[in-house]
Amino acid sequence: MTDRLRQRLSRRGFLQTASGTIAAASAASFPFEPAAAQVPDIKLPAPPGKQVGFALVGLGSLAINQLMPAFARSQKAKLVGFVSGRPEKAKQLAQLYNVDPKNIYTYDTYERIADNPAIDVIYVVLPNSMHAEYTIRALKAGKHVLCEKPMANTPQECEQMIAAAKAANRKLMVGYRVRYEPYNQALIAYARETAEAGPTRMILAEAGFNIGNPNQWRLKKQMAGGGSLMDIGVYALNAARYLSGEEPVAVNAVMHSTPNDPRFAEVEENINFQLRFPGGIIANCGSSYGVNINRHRVLKPRGSAELDPASSYTGLRMRVIRGGAIEERILPQRDHFAAEMDHFAGCVLDNTEPLTPGEEGLKDMKVIMAIYEAARSGRTVTLA
Amino acid sequence: MTDRLRQRLSRRGFLQTASGTIAAASAASFPFEPAAAQVPDIKLPAPPGKQVGFALVGLGSLAINQLMPAFARSQKAKLVGFVSGRPEKAKQLAQLYNVDPKNIYTYDTYERIADNPAIDVIYVVLPNSMHAEYTIRALKAGKHVLCEKPMANTPQECEQMIAAAKAANRKLMVGYRVRYEPYNQALIAYARETAEAGPTRMILAEAGFNIGNPNQWRLKKQMAGGGSLMDIGVYALNAARYLSGEEPVAVNAVMHSTPNDPRFAEVEENINFQLRFPGGIIANCGSSYGVNINRHRVLKPRGSAELDPASSYTGLRMRVIRGGAIEERILPQRDHFAAEMDHFAGCVLDNTEPLTPGEEGLKDMKVIMAIYEAARSGRTVTLA
Repeated sequence: MTDRLRQRLSRRGFLQTASGTIAAASAASFPFEPAAAQVPDIKLPAPPGKQVGFALVGLGSLAINQLMPAFARSQKAKLVGFVSGRPEKAKQLAQLYNVDPKNIYTYDTYERIADNPAIDVIYVVLPNSMHAEYTIRALKAGKHVLCEKPMANTPQECEQMIAAAKAANRKLMVGYRVRYEPYNQALIAYARETAEAGPTRMILAEAGFNIGNPNQWRLKKQMAGGGSLMDIGVYALNAARYLSGEEPVAVNAVMHSTPNDPRFAEVEENINFQLRFPGGIIANCGSSYGVNINRHRVLKPRGSAELDPASSYTGLRMRVIRGGAIEERILPQRDHFAAEMDHFAGCVLDNTEPLTPGEEGLKDMKVIMAIYEAARSGRTVTLA
Repeated sequence: MTDRLRQRLSRRGFLQTASGTIAAASAASFPFEPAAAQVPDIKLPAPPGKQVGFALVGLGSLAINQLMPAFARSQKAKLVGFVSGRPEKAKQLAQLYNVDPKNIYTYDTYERIADNPAIDVIYVVLPNSMHAEYTIRALKAGKHVLCEKPMANTPQECEQMIAAAKAANRKLMVGYRVRYEPYNQALIAYARETAEAGPTRMILAEAGFNIGNPNQWRLKKQMAGGGSLMDIGVYALNAARYLSGEEPVAVNAVMHSTPNDPRFAEVEENINFQLRFPGGIIANCGSSYGVNINRHRVLKPRGSAELDPASSYTGLRMRVIRGGAIEERILPQRDHFAAEMDHFAGCVLDNTEPLTPGEEGLKDMKVIMAIYEAARSGRTVTLA
């Protein structure tokens, strides 16, 4: 080693850099000897700031498998209570998630949450037909409400929910979780906000899965309000709306259910629909309880971009296509439910409006009704 | 080296194996010394059997860039003649492809092909509005006809072409090239012939490209018969039909062209359509002269398969999706046009019916008319 090199390395060893003295020292010692084992202190998460207390209403699969674990990844939302018709189940889950048994309610004692200052937000995770009632009762009890999609079974119910929020001066948000995760946000930016590849001309969006147990509430017309369109096709509809940034003015649809399949005795299996937007974008959308599909594609004159899967809980992927080249865009994967709950908790703390308020659910519900009417009538249904 | 090892290697050097003595000797010599350079004789292509003489009518981009080179990859089809309104162009191309100048015709001398025994097949590669006339004239001259898609501008013309073939006792085929290449054949097998993943429930098919020069014949209503649907969307329609193996019974459609875009003064840019098949499959299809898209997807209860691209001249790709796993199926890439011409040459030689006869073109044309009617009327159009 020359003196000159030795001098330079020695100087490096004492440089103060942005990454701090530990990194600089280990870089300097590397050529001479193994560095002494240095385990840097792991930075602890910051102690929570003000957190918003959430109570879950309805302890089904989504609540247990997705929402409860998501609180651990949330900054501002804290799981503090349950409302359930099955007290034993609620008690067991309360032990698991360290929920105070005082904060467990039944559907009969639901109104008493008004007197519980630990609960700020009610997250309604019930069958669709119960969304309106349990949202309105929570709002009347002075609580903010995050309601799962679809918002309700009819536009009229949605309007009543919005009116109840206004009357109570409380916040109301619909749980359109993919609006809060990076992949759909990136596709929105591609479709609406960047000049990349020219203006959006066509949107393709499909959402479907092969539904299991024929006895579940999703397959009962009275509880679900409809079939695949209400539960899963609403993702494709919502995507066509948020990717175009417009409201559709005309709708076509075709519907089919496999004959004699016990799952589809009351509700539709497949319903495909076409949307025309005022700026000229046309969208082809698919909805299914029979096949697995999960994709959003935005088409422009000089390129396209696709999410596939587009609305799964995890593992979303994005491809951008241009000039015959396909590029995958790797983005941070976020827990959709944690992101959604954090957003609403922030709205409550800061008194701001959510990105997907009740009005957003109402807009989807009006189009859903038009899609069903188009499929039944065999006519293009126009929307005001 | 032990005596035992030396003995084994020596024995291997004289073993006669299925791969022959050269392979055995080089395997044996490898550990000891470089093998002497041995260039095996390259097997020459077999001398052609009976070949069918093709004359191209219309020397545009498809004929020059795709069809002429494809003859070199064809076994049974031989390029022997041209019919063109531009004799200088035809003469130059004849030199390039070793076509006898005696076999060059103009549109005025077209009927004289009747007296030319070197020409068995006329391949019609003209603008759509000329397909019927030049097909019928060739049939009357006693020639078999391969006609590019779309078969003609109207179902009536298609019927006249079919009648002319019957009257002349000659063969008539429509150039649906992707029916003759391995990827679409594999997707048909997945959709219709295998039990893999259950029966097909939904088909998605889109075909489109961002069309260039606003002055080309494809954008003139009179010559093209229509816009993107006639030229490129017909691939999506044809795919929905061959993937389902059925004829659609009902059609919805929505159409849009970018206002003030000079390319779309006469014909449509985008037209998306929905098909209902009698067995219950529903298809969502897209057609565009504004965006690049090229995909066929078949959806089943327990899996799906996709070609993307699906109808490009080269580079098709197939993905099969099941249980969250995505597998790419690599298949032989064939020249679509060589495969298509070989098929028709075989039909002529063996007196068999082509896979895509005139009747196939007529079926597409009837659905195309229904799609336009559905888009114009805003109603579901039913087909007999």
